[in-house]
Amino acid sequence: MVNETQHSCSASSSSRSDGGSSSGSESSKDNSRCSTPVLDADRHERLREKMRRRQDAGDKWFSLEFFPPRTANAAVNLISRRVLQGRRGEVFDHMGAGGPLFIDVTWHPAGDPGSDKETSSMIIAYTAVNYCGLETILHMTCCNQSKDDITGHLQKAKRLGLKNIMALRGDPSGEEWEEEVDGFNYAVDLVKHIRNEFDDYFDICVAGYPKGHPEAESYEADLRHLKEKVFAGADFIITQLFFRPETFLKFMKDCQAIGITCPIIPGIFPIQGYHSLRQLVKLSKLEVPQEIKDVIEPIKDNDAAIRNYGVELAVSMCRELLDSGMVHGLHFYTLNREVATTEVLKRLGIWNEDPRRPLPWAVSAHPKRRVEDVRPIFWASRPKSYIYRTQEWDDFPNGRWGNSSSPAFGELKDYYLFYLKSKSPREELLKMWGEELTSEESVFEVFTCYITGEPNRNGYKVTCMPWNDDPLATETNLLKEQLERVNRRGILTINSQPNINGKPSTDPIVGWGPSGGYVFQKAYLEFFTSSEIVRALLKVLRKYELRVNYHIVNVKGENITNAPDLQPNAVTWGIFPGREIIQPTVVDPVSFLSWKDEAFALWIEQWAKLYEEESPSRMIIQYIHDNYYLVNLVDNDFPLENCLWQVVEDTFELLN
Amino acid sequence: MVNETQHSCSASSSSRSDGGSSSGSESSKDNSRCSTPVLDADRHERLREKMRRRQDAGDKWFSLEFFPPRTANAAVNLISRRVLQGRRGEVFDHMGAGGPLFIDVTWHPAGDPGSDKETSSMIIAYTAVNYCGLETILHMTCCNQSKDDITGHLQKAKRLGLKNIMALRGDPSGEEWEEEVDGFNYAVDLVKHIRNEFDDYFDICVAGYPKGHPEAESYEADLRHLKEKVFAGADFIITQLFFRPETFLKFMKDCQAIGITCPIIPGIFPIQGYHSLRQLVKLSKLEVPQEIKDVIEPIKDNDAAIRNYGVELAVSMCRELLDSGMVHGLHFYTLNREVATTEVLKRLGIWNEDPRRPLPWAVSAHPKRRVEDVRPIFWASRPKSYIYRTQEWDDFPNGRWGNSSSPAFGELKDYYLFYLKSKSPREELLKMWGEELTSEESVFEVFTCYITGEPNRNGYKVTCMPWNDDPLATETNLLKEQLERVNRRGILTINSQPNINGKPSTDPIVGWGPSGGYVFQKAYLEFFTSSEIVRALLKVLRKYELRVNYHIVNVKGENITNAPDLQPNAVTWGIFPGREIIQPTVVDPVSFLSWKDEAFALWIEQWAKLYEEESPSRMIIQYIHDNYYLVNLVDNDFPLENCLWQVVEDTFELLN
Repeated sequence: MVNETQHSCSASSSSRSDGGSSSGSESSKDNSRCSTPVLDADRHERLREKMRRRQDAGDKWFSLEFFPPRTANAAVNLISRRVLQGRRGEVFDHMGAGGPLFIDVTWHPAGDPGSDKETSSMIIAYTAVNYCGLETILHMTCCNQSKDDITGHLQKAKRLGLKNIMALRGDPSGEEWEEEVDGFNYAVDLVKHIRNEFDDYFDICVAGYPKGHPEAESYEADLRHLKEKVFAGADFIITQLFFRPETFLKFMKDCQAIGITCPIIPGIFPIQGYHSLRQLVKLSKLEVPQEIKDVIEPIKDNDAAIRNYGVELAVSMCRELLDSGMVHGLHFYTLNREVATTEVLKRLGIWNEDPRRPLPWAVSAHPKRRVEDVRPIFWASRPKSYIYRTQEWDDFPNGRWGNSSSPAFGELKDYYLFYLKSKSPREELLKMWGEELTSEESVFEVFTCYITGEPNRNGYKVTCMPWNDDPLATETNLLKEQLERVNRRGILTINSQPNINGKPSTDPIVGWGPSGGYVFQKAYLEFFTSSEIVRALLKVLRKYELRVNYHIVNVKGENITNAPDLQPNAVTWGIFPGREIIQPTVVDPVSFLSWKDEAFALWIEQWAKLYEEESPSRMIIQYIHDNYYLVNLVDNDFPLENCLWQVVEDTFELLN
Repeated sequence: MVNETQHSCSASSSSRSDGGSSSGSESSKDNSRCSTPVLDADRHERLREKMRRRQDAGDKWFSLEFFPPRTANAAVNLISRRVLQGRRGEVFDHMGAGGPLFIDVTWHPAGDPGSDKETSSMIIAYTAVNYCGLETILHMTCCNQSKDDITGHLQKAKRLGLKNIMALRGDPSGEEWEEEVDGFNYAVDLVKHIRNEFDDYFDICVAGYPKGHPEAESYEADLRHLKEKVFAGADFIITQLFFRPETFLKFMKDCQAIGITCPIIPGIFPIQGYHSLRQLVKLSKLEVPQEIKDVIEPIKDNDAAIRNYGVELAVSMCRELLDSGMVHGLHFYTLNREVATTEVLKRLGIWNEDPRRPLPWAVSAHPKRRVEDVRPIFWASRPKSYIYRTQEWDDFPNGRWGNSSSPAFGELKDYYLFYLKSKSPREELLKMWGEELTSEESVFEVFTCYITGEPNRNGYKVTCMPWNDDPLATETNLLKEQLERVNRRGILTINSQPNINGKPSTDPIVGWGPSGGYVFQKAYLEFFTSSEIVRALLKVLRKYELRVNYHIVNVKGENITNAPDLQPNAVTWGIFPGREIIQPTVVDPVSFLSWKDEAFALWIEQWAKLYEEESPSRMIIQYIHDNYYLVNLVDNDFPLENCLWQVVEDTFELLN
């Protein structure tokens, strides 16, 4: 146990010292790092350690392969939330919830895979790690590339927080491929290069071919090549797809027989359609067994039937592999589609139906953020914006937020980047938020429809707002009735949480963290409202002076608060067996002012700009932006009934 | 508000940069410092700021003057706990509880006041600050002393964490005093010297004479001298005693008339006896007014009557002073006695009857410890040992305990220092703990009598133990019945706390911290027990694996635990309005091993050594020391009924 703790410390420090931070501040940082309560050992382990630990524990796991999408729109669909026919299309978030040990992103030399484009392999992998919290392997091919190019890609990957590389040869670009002297001719050259230039920084995966590589002289020769790759420094093997379990099991035994002892993960391809199967077979030069052809040919025009068959086939093959006792993890070629793979995993019982949240917010898998354990509540619905705006931070608040030097949030302009902007097209937004606004009250209506889920006067459901890209969270649903009532009257809520007085950490709605613990919350309410309501609210708040903390600010930064000083107020915390208290969410007065800029800007950037300049609709939003206040309220008395609704009712009463 | 926070940060950094710590680590330390939740603004303010804040708030306050005792025994009585005829005699702790703004310690050149003796002014003041948590002013006189001596004293005071000096001339030692050229002839010289050499580090107090200094040419000339002292850099004035309120009020107006604007604190002397009054009058060259003499002379042999009169007189004088609106604080000449001053303060209503604890343990006033907000539970009954053993620490765990580098506790040998050793003489201890031990069971009996408060078989009450210098805490009293039961059977408890699931922070028994909060505890039990019981206990603990954390260790350091790693377990925490979570007490696996050494050593040093070498009594204690285990148990499920008693019962049952 001692070793484990020390190991995670030294791993952290060695990876950091590579990162070029000054060694003077190193020790104090490391001290504070290691003192973070380790809620989730996963976050501190390298992929190969996770794999070993899962294997030692007898766990079965799975991983998922994706390719970089061709268009920005498809990238958004893969990695970001988007309202699409009423269904969330966010593949990474959705499939990530099932608990893959890792995902991997393929590398296509023709698609500029190392660039900064939204569709590049590099950026997709970075986004998966940083924003989606997924352990990720980036593929990289080496043939027809210069040493400098490859080193450049690897340096960039490291800089972006990527820790795992799948080292591949790739397909030669010319007709007839010839070895280059001093070039990268085989994957083994790339493995050696990574180990030479980057020491042990990356975990390296290599490809195995259960039937032998189609270009290899023989199956045996191919096995020898594989052994070379492993001995050059690869940590594990993922195989090419295959159609019969015995193909893999024989391959595995043959590998072991020649001394390959690292993990070998079978690549599973659930057949999803006739055409995709044909294309894949062509690319991989594999032959489909006759018994499969016999089933598929007669139903080749019935996609659903083929998919059902593909799922059946994959499930039965996976069962056989797992039952052999030789296989602990399964790697799925998803073709960027959710349905078939999810179905297989659910039927195998290794899809995580009840994903435990290690913290109330989704943690990032970026190594810099591995100790991050507290965030301000304000970005609760915009976690990607928060991660983006804090990506330059060297250090994350370590168990506590407050700091004499105010945290420097990234500039607001960064915020237009494609994965932060609204995912719905202008026409959809206009249908939801109104083609034409006639008064402030028509804005109230939009908020109210968002809360209730009822269609607006034109028959459209309001499924997102500038501050909330998703429909209402399950937890917020608990507050629906009150929220509807107050939004109708001009208290335009954008964030709230109920109070919780010690629910089990396994509670399906509000639970998080290890089991055996208790979670707590202080009630929170955040809204925009008019200066008239603020004036009444301030009178009412006098009665609640000792119980309710408030921050009230307008776009100019005029700030009214009864917080005694610049201390953060912990509003979510958990008590766990054998650990220090975890307090992952705070209302922090300093970062509230950065959030305020973002929250007000969203009125203009996402809403006002839908309308023509000088149009009445735009002027209404502009008026709200210029004159309303952003208010947050915390009820500190968490064991009692939430008083914030009473505060609001009292305010309305005073106004009448 | 912003200014206040920033101010306390910069004050911390400027006082620290004087302290000679390397500037390289300065900024990171300061960051973490300022992020400590400010539970008690007092801890971060200088005395003159506290005084100003209390005055601005319209609060009335008091301060207490003590002289250094002549003998080590008397010093113990002043500063340490001692069982004396069943009554605790700890003047500092007792009077500190009433809430003085500060205490001051006088300086007697003849008594080697700057030395390291336990009775020196320097050490008494240091002890008051460091161990008793009292804001303290150290007197210092200057006449007949060299500049170097004085600078040496001031440097030492600063090194020991003293922050306030009362600058006095002192009484010339020769018959006829003559000014020395270049020497310190007047208090003003000392004030100037302090400001020259130490800049603004110290708060400086000077003496004022409401009737004029007896040696001054005139009352007016003396006022001018006072003005010089203030203009040379003194922060406030404490006056010589006086007998009539109008004396002080006139003096104060006269001071203001010549431009003295700093606080002037009246020195109050409650007459406590005929002889002490006569002696004081002789020393101060004051004249007792006839109306007082008329009362005292007839009752001069009746101490109680004189004291009652003295209290009456002081109360009425103080009332008049406070009612004048010109006086905010009262300074008491206590003569190191509690009763009269306490009585006056209680009748004035400014004695703090319900001292709010800022944290569950008594905080130290040493500037190095101002951010200390968490301690291991093990030293709960030996806080002075803990402070002593951590006095070399540069930095205190800032909101969290855990640290990759284990904290370096001071050596055990230090521990014989007079304020750490048992305060009862050997004969008393033998009566309590047994003149002769016949078996391990006779040791069980001692523990049981300590818990129950019943006399032992020889008719003596056991009011202290080697691990507990005080009778059982009120809180522990809640557990009395169970404790008695288990001690009788050889579970020799030395520390425990009940679980608490959210009691108000104002709870008179378990409350601490600002009002409006809630405090929590996990149940804790710590005891010595035999290896036989440990074997059974370990079997029982399997049933409680997920609920109870344990550490079991013997004197050789053989350690059995189910704690998942080296993380501390928070066992006391509080949730307060507008603040982060405070978790002031932890079960820390690393420091438990240091505590273990101390806890086992106490068997030998305090108990075994009462008996002759080779005597059966001594061998019984030695046997326990060599063979027993020290066990701590935490029940993590704080909202449920404490299961630790059930664990112990199950263990006994298994043994039967």
